Amino acid sequence: MGTGSSGSAAKSSRPARPRVELLRVGHRPGRDPRLTTHLALVARAFGARRMHLHPPDPRVSDSLAGVRERWGGSFEVVPAPNWRTVVRDAPGAVVHLTMYGQPLARLLPRLAEERDLLLVVGGAKVPAALYREATHNVSVGSQPHSEVAAVAVILERLLGLPGTRPFAGARQRIVPQARGKRVERRGGSPG
Amino acid sequence: MGTGSSGSAAKSSRPARPRVELLRVGHRPGRDPRLTTHLALVARAFGARRMHLHPPDPRVSDSLAGVRERWGGSFEVVPAPNWRTVVRDAPGAVVHLTMYGQPLARLLPRLAEERDLLLVVGGAKVPAALYREATHNVSVGSQPHSEVAAVAVILERLLGLPGTRPFAGARQRIVPQARGKRVERRGGSPG
Repeated sequence: MGTGSSGSAAKSSRPARPRVELLRVGHRPGRDPRLTTHLALVARAFGARRMHLHPPDPRVSDSLAGVRERWGGSFEVVPAPNWRTVVRDAPGAVVHLTMYGQPLARLLPRLAEERDLLLVVGGAKVPAALYREATHNVSVGSQPHSEVAAVAVILERLLGLPGTRPFAGARQRIVPQARGKRVERRGGSPG
Repeated sequence: MGTGSSGSAAKSSRPARPRVELLRVGHRPGRDPRLTTHLALVARAFGARRMHLHPPDPRVSDSLAGVRERWGGSFEVVPAPNWRTVVRDAPGAVVHLTMYGQPLARLLPRLAEERDLLLVVGGAKVPAALYREATHNVSVGSQPHSEVAAVAVILERLLGLPGTRPFAGARQRIVPQARGKRVERRGGSPG
């Protein structure tokens, strides 16, 4: 678990961790705001850079902007009027998470070597084209469960368990406790 | 990763994996059926035995009964009119998953040695007594995210990634594919 390497990463035996973004396809603004918000919160907490949301939904974007304001970091929800554009513009491999895909355990070593990954999760209806346009169709178990769980587990496997340090610019942070809650607030400028 | 040990497990260097159950506290039947259903599906797919649900909600129980019918296994959602009874009757450690708790990475070695674990997740309102009555308050990262993700990650860390084999008695199974979907149905007796 050495972290002391210096110099060029190109020859390192332990490659840099991939930069990960998430695309949520098939969001239904009237029905799904809570589930999609959970998805975005998980992406943020587990180290993804941003979530592209198709179709766009200001409720989710605003909710995450509020989280960023209080809890720091630069994660944002980006409106994606056209999901195909996001897939085609992806700088690296596109990983569609689906219970019908190949087991994560088998694909993980390849995914971990990527520099950039776009994870894609569908909602109730997944466009058939997504199965073709993705670089990989990957399953986190071949049972029905939850896109929230699938995103958490693949991010945890790629980037590790989230730590306890606050994100940059956080106004508040949690101090882990054996019992009860402790939240420290910073700054305190009015407004 | 040897699996060839025989005889008494008591002296094994690799202990048996814990038996895990889940308790969902503070479910709101009018608002939460989808999130709580995701939670139950994740518990099932990642190897928990059952989910106790407080307060009870037949919509969630029926939904999971339908999943069991098609996808096999013995997972069930058990009504829990009184959550304290479930906590007090737990045969092993009670692990309350909360963003305010101690980091999972620190507690994991102890949890992995348990024979029985009851995971507890709260909903919008978590009773303060839960922090006291739990054996451990454990966080999967000190950021807001999702109880669905927390349950998936702790189960994955304790029991491993879910495999691709169907559960016992399944009427249908997924055959993992690089592209598209393949579901095999078994039996086929009418009804």
